[in-house]
Amino acid sequence: VGKPIFTSDRMYQQTPPGVVCGLAWTAMGGSTLYIESSAVGESKRGAFEATGRLGDVMKESIQIAHSYCKKLLTSLEPGNTFLDTNRVHLHIPEGATPKDGPSAGCTLVTALLSLARDQPVRQDLAMTGELSLTGKILPVGGIKEKVIAAKRADIKIICLPEENRKDFDDLPHFIREGIEVHFVSHYTDILPIAFPS
Amino acid sequence: VGKPIFTSDRMYQQTPPGVVCGLAWTAMGGSTLYIESSAVGESKRGAFEATGRLGDVMKESIQIAHSYCKKLLTSLEPGNTFLDTNRVHLHIPEGATPKDGPSAGCTLVTALLSLARDQPVRQDLAMTGELSLTGKILPVGGIKEKVIAAKRADIKIICLPEENRKDFDDLPHFIREGIEVHFVSHYTDILPIAFPS
Amino acid sequence: VGKPIFTSDRMYQQTPPGVVCGLAWTAMGGSTLYIESSAVGESKRGAFEATGRLGDVMKESIQIAHSYCKKLLTSLEPGNTFLDTNRVHLHIPEGATPKDGPSAGCTLVTALLSLARDQPVRQDLAMTGELSLTGKILPVGGIKEKVIAAKRADIKIICLPEENRKDFDDLPHFIREGIEVHFVSHYTDILPIAFPS
Repeated sequence: VGKPIFTSDRMYQQTPPGVVCGLAWTAMGGSTLYIESSAVGESKRGAFEATGRLGDVMKESIQIAHSYCKKLLTSLEPGNTFLDTNRVHLHIPEGATPKDGPSAGCTLVTALLSLARDQPVRQDLAMTGELSLTGKILPVGGIKEKVIAAKRADIKIICLPEENRKDFDDLPHFIREGIEVHFVSHYTDILPIAFPS
Repeated sequence: VGKPIFTSDRMYQQTPPGVVCGLAWTAMGGSTLYIESSAVGESKRGAFEATGRLGDVMKESIQIAHSYCKKLLTSLEPGNTFLDTNRVHLHIPEGATPKDGPSAGCTLVTALLSLARDQPVRQDLAMTGELSLTGKILPVGGIKEKVIAAKRADIKIICLPEENRKDFDDLPHFIREGIEVHFVSHYTDILPIAFPS
Repeated sequence: VGKPIFTSDRMYQQTPPGVVCGLAWTAMGGSTLYIESSAVGESKRGAFEATGRLGDVMKESIQIAHSYCKKLLTSLEPGNTFLDTNRVHLHIPEGATPKDGPSAGCTLVTALLSLARDQPVRQDLAMTGELSLTGKILPVGGIKEKVIAAKRADIKIICLPEENRKDFDDLPHFIREGIEVHFVSHYTDILPIAFPS
């Protein structure tokens, strides 16, 4: 009623370090949704805070992504203690829109990793997928709506869970065409796509 | 019912450091709404507290504004540690009126910045706009009611989100005339307007 | 409605240290359910955190398993202070599915023990059983559904509470065949099965 939930199809033309495009699925259809992260102070045990009217499942997703990302960062860059020593603020605009569900898991890890490495992710990239504590990527709902939303926002590359391959393959050709899709089963499959060296 | 939501059209004739005029939209129409901020003690990690019968979305807006303003202040005045070492109290009169929504974002940053710099903002200025964690200004509702309220309170200059330009342009000429409007897409667009040097 | 609760019959083909397969019983039938655990930082008193939309009874199960496992580990490996010095994160995918009940008790202890010893458990193993604070294994519901789910996921060995022996014996032969069952009355009965030396 009234104002559309997401007024802009694409909030960032260029994403800086710490910002990554996710794909959401609402009663009104799919939409892009940016995860923003920022270091806001020192912290002895690497705390985080989150805003954006997030539901309980999404708050847990952040906790899982933060735990997993700390481990991943330690293995990728042993000297990088960013997530252990900084307080990180995560925000998901728009602030008045309630958001919930586990499907932002892989996007949250990517945002934290991009922030901790001070490295922007590949442009025109979006992703969706639930994250397990060990980095597995689990299937999510709304693949059709999410792919349509990505194309509408001029996204060129998307990462989808391997277990959603069948959902993507079932889409009509005119929806599937013009977008580069990567099916991933573990977060480490996303690394070379988001951070090509 | 009963007492009108805002009893005075303009609470401050002159705003001191830390106080900035925002624009609110209620079921009863638009109104000006002042954000007041004050340092209330030392704090090791730069805490804040907020009053004014604020809803959850507005509380999150304060958290986002505080995080963003810390980063902005560091880039504007590297030696200014005000927000890291002081506990700040934010209040939005009138205390009995419930307030919610994300549209005070840019006003909150401006109040915190004015307090931290001990510098009043330009007089006769009001603003509205949701803030993202990286400083983007997102569109808000109630542009017509807010512009009418600003004029009724003798405000001369307003900042509106760029994405609300169409809403402003659709207003009848007699509402638009007599007010200087700036459309902003990032908080840094507000800086030279609020703090002309 | 819509998406099935568990889309994959078997999430892990190989379980790493800290991950153990449990058996759950839902309104939709039985299913395998993996407990994932990971050390996420130092902790002076051996704290833990848990995610996966867990109900209060399951949260208490984790508390009981953590308390019991600390004692057990001290007796098995006196020098191993892992659970006293690390903050452990436990997660049970899938994140949007509510989970509750006490029957994951023995699985939780096994996951913590596997993590603390940095030793994977025997592959193709699943278990179910409530845990008492002293390590007793108490009976649980849904034996038939759980055994069917284990076989569907290609599990070869299951541990069931001794007091559920009658429920298993009542199952038709074609369900019971092809799976190695161990009936246990105390957690120490599970040790040589999960960690054969």
